[in-house]
Amino acid sequence: MKIINDVKFLIVGLGLIGGSYAQALTDLGYEVGAVTRSQSSIDYAKEHGLISHGTTEVTREYISQFDVIVFALYPKVFIEWIEKYQEYFKSGALLTDVTGVKGPIVYKIQALLRKDVEFVGAHPMAGREVYGVQNADKTIFRNANYIVTPTENNTKEGIAVCKSLGKILGFKTIAELSPEKHDEMIGFLSQLTHCIAVSLMTCKESEHLVDYTGDSFRDLTRIAKINEDMWSELFLMNKDELLSQMDLFIEKFKELKSSIENEDIDKMKSIMRTSTKRRAFFDKK
Amino acid sequence: MKIINDVKFLIVGLGLIGGSYAQALTDLGYEVGAVTRSQSSIDYAKEHGLISHGTTEVTREYISQFDVIVFALYPKVFIEWIEKYQEYFKSGALLTDVTGVKGPIVYKIQALLRKDVEFVGAHPMAGREVYGVQNADKTIFRNANYIVTPTENNTKEGIAVCKSLGKILGFKTIAELSPEKHDEMIGFLSQLTHCIAVSLMTCKESEHLVDYTGDSFRDLTRIAKINEDMWSELFLMNKDELLSQMDLFIEKFKELKSSIENEDIDKMKSIMRTSTKRRAFFDKK
Repeated sequence: MKIINDVKFLIVGLGLIGGSYAQALTDLGYEVGAVTRSQSSIDYAKEHGLISHGTTEVTREYISQFDVIVFALYPKVFIEWIEKYQEYFKSGALLTDVTGVKGPIVYKIQALLRKDVEFVGAHPMAGREVYGVQNADKTIFRNANYIVTPTENNTKEGIAVCKSLGKILGFKTIAELSPEKHDEMIGFLSQLTHCIAVSLMTCKESEHLVDYTGDSFRDLTRIAKINEDMWSELFLMNKDELLSQMDLFIEKFKELKSSIENEDIDKMKSIMRTSTKRRAFFDKK
Repeated sequence: MKIINDVKFLIVGLGLIGGSYAQALTDLGYEVGAVTRSQSSIDYAKEHGLISHGTTEVTREYISQFDVIVFALYPKVFIEWIEKYQEYFKSGALLTDVTGVKGPIVYKIQALLRKDVEFVGAHPMAGREVYGVQNADKTIFRNANYIVTPTENNTKEGIAVCKSLGKILGFKTIAELSPEKHDEMIGFLSQLTHCIAVSLMTCKESEHLVDYTGDSFRDLTRIAKINEDMWSELFLMNKDELLSQMDLFIEKFKELKSSIENEDIDKMKSIMRTSTKRRAFFDKK
């Protein structure tokens, strides 16, 4: 199966990410359906041309028409959905997702899934600090990374389709990682950063700080506006990895703190030089 | 003295900030001179219309013509400059600065300064991760905050001129803080954030991380590209305040960490809700 014009996409969960997938795929000329909990999200998506059709009721008749199904749900709801409705999938359907944690999801879904459909995990590294299909915006994928996390249970063909999906959605880089390596990476790059931002933001009452702040504090706390239901679930699903990344950060932070305490200027400068050098890799090209 | 058309400005130190001040003032129609170490900076600034004239040599003849003098130097160099050349100032001149730490600077300068000139400390909360007059850009002041840090030694008139300067440069907010309060604020909002960014950036080799990163890590480490000479000086000048802000952050970070360790979802969510609520004050209007 290739991603060609007669492929029908189903988005399960019309939030910010699901809605943005729908918008990108519809704009490319694909037929895109949606299943989500609230009728108002379906109505909005239809009115704004994000989807061709959609429903709040999960039926065999509706689900069985789709070739590629994208799950944009919270982790636990995703697993429950598969357990409950997997009998409705068309045989040969390809399933993928957008979940931010992979180890505890990918193997579990693959283990409980019917053998005539395939699930390839994926993580689009894109988002905004707003929620809901009303904020869907396919441009968030531009300049963003898309990580596919295949396992031994996946076929070359399934992996290829999943990667093609990332490509047609407009992601800049399509990378491949094992679920374990993904979770280590994301524990550091995404979960740790959210923990830092939240901790910094909760240090002080902040209303009066606005008039004195520069862009640094603003940048460091952008992601401190956080969806507590989703992120607490993601943190606990990746608990061990996240805790060890937090420890690593504390160690480095204390190293810098000691150098300031001891007025060890050489050490301070050497840390800052390493920082500058490593940050250079991240300059947007 | 008011800031009117016949006021002549001198910028001492033509770097990013000094150059941006020069550009803004020249574009407003003021006569702007400059003293800086490198002739190439003077040449660049003249060629690009940032200043009317400038010199690398500090002479009584040149310095004594200016009414308002802005010091955009590293802290220690600033103090040395005043000690060495203050005899050249025109009587009645108003001095101000852009230094990121106030307590150790403002009182020291005021104590050693001639009594017929006035120094009012100021801190423009604007910057970029690039250096030098070649990157001067007056638009960095838009939407930014400008903090004036007067003491008992200052006159109402001097403070008013200093605030007017912030206004005509285009700052969004002009605030007033004591030097001590400024340093506490900046220890938290600016220095602590730089320490966090640097520590995060030095946790791991980063070249291979670029393909997996989302915007969070990029945002949190923007300021990790850091001028080690300037910041090590600023950190040590505000050492006690910075260390206590670092301790506060570690305490909050460990609180979140424990809640994850103990899988205390209520606690995690409550921290995140506080974070979201406090971040809302920072949404750009």
